[in-house]
Amino acid sequence: MSFPTSLPRARTLDPKAAPTLRWGVLGTGWIADRFVASLRKHSSQQVVAVGSRTQSSAQAFADRHGITAAYGSYEAVVGAADVDVVYIATPHNAHLPNALLSLEAGKHTLIEKPLGTTAVEARQIAAAAEEAGVFCMEAMWTAFLPKYDVLRQLLADKALGGPLSVVADFGEWFADDHRIMRPELAGGPLLDLATYLVTFALGALGPVTDVAARGQSAPSGVLGQVGALLTHTGGTQSVLHTTLRGNTPTTAVIAGTEASLVVDGPFYQPGGFTLTSALGLGSLRYDEEPIAHEGLHFQAAEVARRITAGEMGSPLRPLADSIATLDVLDAIESACH
Amino acid sequence: MSFPTSLPRARTLDPKAAPTLRWGVLGTGWIADRFVASLRKHSSQQVVAVGSRTQSSAQAFADRHGITAAYGSYEAVVGAADVDVVYIATPHNAHLPNALLSLEAGKHTLIEKPLGTTAVEARQIAAAAEEAGVFCMEAMWTAFLPKYDVLRQLLADKALGGPLSVVADFGEWFADDHRIMRPELAGGPLLDLATYLVTFALGALGPVTDVAARGQSAPSGVLGQVGALLTHTGGTQSVLHTTLRGNTPTTAVIAGTEASLVVDGPFYQPGGFTLTSALGLGSLRYDEEPIAHEGLHFQAAEVARRITAGEMGSPLRPLADSIATLDVLDAIESACH
Repeated sequence: MSFPTSLPRARTLDPKAAPTLRWGVLGTGWIADRFVASLRKHSSQQVVAVGSRTQSSAQAFADRHGITAAYGSYEAVVGAADVDVVYIATPHNAHLPNALLSLEAGKHTLIEKPLGTTAVEARQIAAAAEEAGVFCMEAMWTAFLPKYDVLRQLLADKALGGPLSVVADFGEWFADDHRIMRPELAGGPLLDLATYLVTFALGALGPVTDVAARGQSAPSGVLGQVGALLTHTGGTQSVLHTTLRGNTPTTAVIAGTEASLVVDGPFYQPGGFTLTSALGLGSLRYDEEPIAHEGLHFQAAEVARRITAGEMGSPLRPLADSIATLDVLDAIESACH
Repeated sequence: MSFPTSLPRARTLDPKAAPTLRWGVLGTGWIADRFVASLRKHSSQQVVAVGSRTQSSAQAFADRHGITAAYGSYEAVVGAADVDVVYIATPHNAHLPNALLSLEAGKHTLIEKPLGTTAVEARQIAAAAEEAGVFCMEAMWTAFLPKYDVLRQLLADKALGGPLSVVADFGEWFADDHRIMRPELAGGPLLDLATYLVTFALGALGPVTDVAARGQSAPSGVLGQVGALLTHTGGTQSVLHTTLRGNTPTTAVIAGTEASLVVDGPFYQPGGFTLTSALGLGSLRYDEEPIAHEGLHFQAAEVARRITAGEMGSPLRPLADSIATLDVLDAIESACH
């Protein structure tokens, strides 16, 4: 096997050229702010409505982002005739009820990660989407970054030889009063951070046959840090680490017999990676602008294209993959207790 | 807690100023070559004898390095009156018999990593050293690098706050015919590579209360790759990965509540690290010349100083620490089968 002379090009289509849909947003938190800002800056998508449990919060969000309609309930958004697609940006433990609300109203629905708090919840959402016959997807925005299209092509071309190991970590320091520390809001590192790790590992090495994990609690009672060892079909392995109690480089590595691929930290955001030959045949560098959560528009453009084409999901993040990720996260959670 | 304004200075003494001892070397392989070259270039130590199972191999090594005495047996080296200290650089599975040979001859002895192939063997060596009343140490050269003296001071000063997680990996691609792939020579990634990982983890987080591990075999039957989760006293955690089948960045991270410390790859060699505040109070950079195995002389100077002072070991790598590392490696090995 020879080392490639250049990297494949990303096949990602121009986000600004995607059909324009009218979006309604449920929730007014950190990620909702970033999602709407990214759409306004980088896409032709229109955000036409926002809903919150309080009118004042919805109005403040609408004022920040120039949105016409601000509703003091989620029902009003999913019932609005001018909303084509609902984006659910509420806390994890509200994803299931909010998704069912949207799907049962017949709205196409994009749900923030994770799809539900457990694989059981995720399967309920998938069943409701099938019943409603509308588009439904988890907002795993990483999958839609150009970087990951290049990475997928390298894996499909077997440019790494046998990819035998994944080593990835995601550690971030959070203050004790952060939402992520609150058990009643489904806090902890698994649903927020490890979902990226497990998604990466499954994407690189395929289905999992065994999960070993250990974790320690943070003072609030949520898991503070977790290590997990995944064994994949065919005898490959992922070694994953996440913590809420300290910052780590948050890089991801796929080590193969022909080449290794090291994704710069934070690996789940727009950025670069390096592919290096195991046999000393050189290395290749990929770079894209590290615009962090401004990269959320790639995902929105994909959603708009699929919905316009009459599809029920995206092959880059089918609901089955979201469920598979939660199956592994559930197993990690179990192994930690 | 405030972030430090500067890093402590390494307290490492000038290796060239250490008392000169006369060394005899057992074995003529890769590490023996590097050890002798480093001593000649960077220290005042004298290598006066080399022994091999064949006279021709010993003579070739002596010719390469300008050593006067070349012996066709290990017995001749440990029996030579002009040898003050014996350095054992034979394959892992010969460490125990070679160490006993040297110690029973009353020679001070430095034994390449790992001390033995198991903790049981390591304890035999420690007992023989005590019986003989001579100096005995494992050649864990990393412990004597200036970088690790700075790192130890930071940990002692609690500059990282609660150091809660270690994430470290050591992956290197080896050809199928390499010595490390041979089960009959105690090959595999644990004794050669993971010994550095476990030593780092124990040094940062202290004794281990639980070991979980998974591994996959390489075609030759040795373990090809291993992931391990160590739980340390007090509820801290290490997440470790090693592979013989691909190259990984080989970095080591200690993530604490006040700061994180990221050691450049390869973390076990001379090089740099970065200490970064968790609260955004800045970062500090440590650098030393990345001279790879030329850094073996720091260890030799320490050995010469301790022996001259009449000590039986070094507090930077006591035999108890070498045994503790092998206890964990034994547990990892068991958990992988």
